Amino acid sequence: MKLYTSYRSDAAYRVRIALTFKGLPHESEYFDVDDRDGLIHDPDYREINPQGVVPTLGEGYRRYRQSIAIMEYLEECYPTPPILPGSSRDRERIRSLSQLIVSDIAPLTGPRALAYLKTSLGLDEEGCKSWIWYWSEQGLAALESLLKDNPATTNYCHGDLPTMADICLVSQVHGFEQHGWRLETFPTIERIYRTCMELDAFRTTAPEFQPDNPSA
Amino acid sequence: MKLYTSYRSDAAYRVRIALTFKGLPHESEYFDVDDRDGLIHDPDYREINPQGVVPTLGEGYRRYRQSIAIMEYLEECYPTPPILPGSSRDRERIRSLSQLIVSDIAPLTGPRALAYLKTSLGLDEEGCKSWIWYWSEQGLAALESLLKDNPATTNYCHGDLPTMADICLVSQVHGFEQHGWRLETFPTIERIYRTCMELDAFRTTAPEFQPDNPSA
Repeated sequence: MKLYTSYRSDAAYRVRIALTFKGLPHESEYFDVDDRDGLIHDPDYREINPQGVVPTLGEGYRRYRQSIAIMEYLEECYPTPPILPGSSRDRERIRSLSQLIVSDIAPLTGPRALAYLKTSLGLDEEGCKSWIWYWSEQGLAALESLLKDNPATTNYCHGDLPTMADICLVSQVHGFEQHGWRLETFPTIERIYRTCMELDAFRTTAPEFQPDNPSA
Repeated sequence: MKLYTSYRSDAAYRVRIALTFKGLPHESEYFDVDDRDGLIHDPDYREINPQGVVPTLGEGYRRYRQSIAIMEYLEECYPTPPILPGSSRDRERIRSLSQLIVSDIAPLTGPRALAYLKTSLGLDEEGCKSWIWYWSEQGLAALESLLKDNPATTNYCHGDLPTMADICLVSQVHGFEQHGWRLETFPTIERIYRTCMELDAFRTTAPEFQPDNPSA
């Protein structure tokens, strides 16, 4: 398999974790995200992904897009170890925690939204920080509440092993920490994040170890 | 089952379509979205959904959140008629088209983002329209390209029957049309939208027919 990726994409980080967690060998191709709009403009890549976002996963001549859809695909084709274990009710909880992060925090705090705020609305550094904080705080507070009140939450989001929800949590919280923000207000999220980051699949695939990261 | 909903939520519209398409009887409870932040502040509802967003689906004492996770749950428990038919590859495509809409267009153009732009950034009506247009145009252009170039696209997104991707497409395009925008630039999306809107499950569940809609 081949992963089209960028160290700057939370969504690509999710798929790197899932591939590594499942022990699936893959090669990587790296792309630059344009600061002016948060998109990839490489014309060859646009053929593969007309939206100009990563990740895309290639398998033979097939191309798979969108981190959640890719993870669901990997789970169906390579079920061991699972990232969506348990009953339909278990999976609903795992998916809903994942979706809270992927739909309700990530798109608002990612490079595309920030590029528009800076370029088209002229928002300064401070304004951008407030924007990121607003969505992160709102989303993580809801997530914390859903995690701490549920007996299925352990040192992972759901049950005794990492799932798709932990992958999504780590991809989001990692960026949050990079902004120098503390997780104290979200003790359950912090505990889960720290537990996951002790695992190879989560740690070795982090943005700071990606070869396209200039500070790597 | 019980659906906690609002006529103003695209995500709730998705679940209304899915429930109706699968012929699942349910009662509804309606909530007001606060214009200042795009959230629901009813304290009883916050107990059910700490994020303050709809939909939530209740089944017995269980509560299911997030439209995509709810639709996946319905598909697992009530598989006929399917909204995720076919092989793992088919489902990857259906899920990735769905996710493009649900993660990359809807959160940016929904009531929560617009409330922040107006209230905290002081953006005027025209600025808000440009913002909505920017994300809608970018997302729908990518969607159009992924649909028109693929032989699996028919009068629906994937194959001969409606799927989760059509549900997501309709929920998004319906709002787009309500802004008075034309779909001419996106002929495949328009064709699929019109085809779906001939079906009861898509038409009768539309926001304009919801009892909490003041113009209903």
